[in-house]
Amino acid sequence: MDELLTTTLDVLKETGYERLTIDEVVSRVHASKATVYRRWPSKSALVVAAFVHAVSHLPAEYDTGSLRGDLLAGMDDLLNEMERLADVMAGLIDEKRRNEELATALREGFLDARKQVAAGAFARARERGEIAPDADVEVLWQIAPAVVMFRWLMMGESVPREEGHRLVDEVVLPLARAGRRVSAPATPPPPPPRRRHAPPSS
Amino acid sequence: MDELLTTTLDVLKETGYERLTIDEVVSRVHASKATVYRRWPSKSALVVAAFVHAVSHLPAEYDTGSLRGDLLAGMDDLLNEMERLADVMAGLIDEKRRNEELATALREGFLDARKQVAAGAFARARERGEIAPDADVEVLWQIAPAVVMFRWLMMGESVPREEGHRLVDEVVLPLARAGRRVSAPATPPPPPPRRRHAPPSS
Repeated sequence: MDELLTTTLDVLKETGYERLTIDEVVSRVHASKATVYRRWPSKSALVVAAFVHAVSHLPAEYDTGSLRGDLLAGMDDLLNEMERLADVMAGLIDEKRRNEELATALREGFLDARKQVAAGAFARARERGEIAPDADVEVLWQIAPAVVMFRWLMMGESVPREEGHRLVDEVVLPLARAGRRVSAPATPPPPPPRRRHAPPSS
Repeated sequence: MDELLTTTLDVLKETGYERLTIDEVVSRVHASKATVYRRWPSKSALVVAAFVHAVSHLPAEYDTGSLRGDLLAGMDDLLNEMERLADVMAGLIDEKRRNEELATALREGFLDARKQVAAGAFARARERGEIAPDADVEVLWQIAPAVVMFRWLMMGESVPREEGHRLVDEVVLPLARAGRRVSAPATPPPPPPRRRHAPPSS
């Protein structure tokens, strides 16, 4: 059955959800249409099964001993997933608006799974005293996947590993360490504003 | 012609690109199919025109006098656009992989336009001394649109205005003010890591 599901994913990458047909999938594997329909009575059921199968290899948890290590491992994993699944996701984003089962598969199978892995990493970091007690984990966990998916799905660019790591080192970690204090203009102190057209102050 | 283009957008929201037909659009407006085809010889041409028309109202530039003002204005604008266009974008993300004209319309009409508005705001802020000289604008401009689109398109949630403003105040502005210095572990100094299973240190 694995071959049928991975082939469904291949066809989905090529055609998108709307153009995918069970005929096309069956023509590429050694299976009869009856076999497919017996297990998955609709195209929608087959695609959901293929997507769930594709994301079922997500690691449940990393625990490298430091937040940086955990976040870099999570980033590498996300970049691998996008390499493999970005085209599939592009083919499902519209359909999931009409298909509750697909929306659930995408949300629970992919997004909530990532959120939980990140939440675990931040919780351990807080326990170790690596991050500010008031760090806003609810916002922080979204930043890396959001930027990676934005680049991949909206800009149509892949994200090189070094850039993914820079996101961790220059965006997520500094915000986590500083916590909400950073939002107070005094920490770190911004240079005094200078007005373009004002006379020089010294 | 405006009515035809806004109706095309309405149909696109409801059905997605693949299911949209010119027949359906024509049936809703006082226009003949011949009129449509004379101007837009294909469904793809019509959809591109409708999308370009929809994003043509993006403001070229804000200049409120402060980076915070500019970024909040940009955020409000983005949230309004997503309210209006998120469903349309969902319907185009997959098709743009196969349709270069659509990909260009999305990239240039929507994304590059936003990037330029943000770049102008950051450039003025740098001139006023509001942000660190080494602030990484190439990364910073992406964060807010990425998180907003992630929430809207991937998580299927809208983003309330207060949350959009928090993204500006607690993520983008602190990073812009601190610059790459924040990535050095010493600024601000993280508390020394404590290991969960190590003997208590005092």
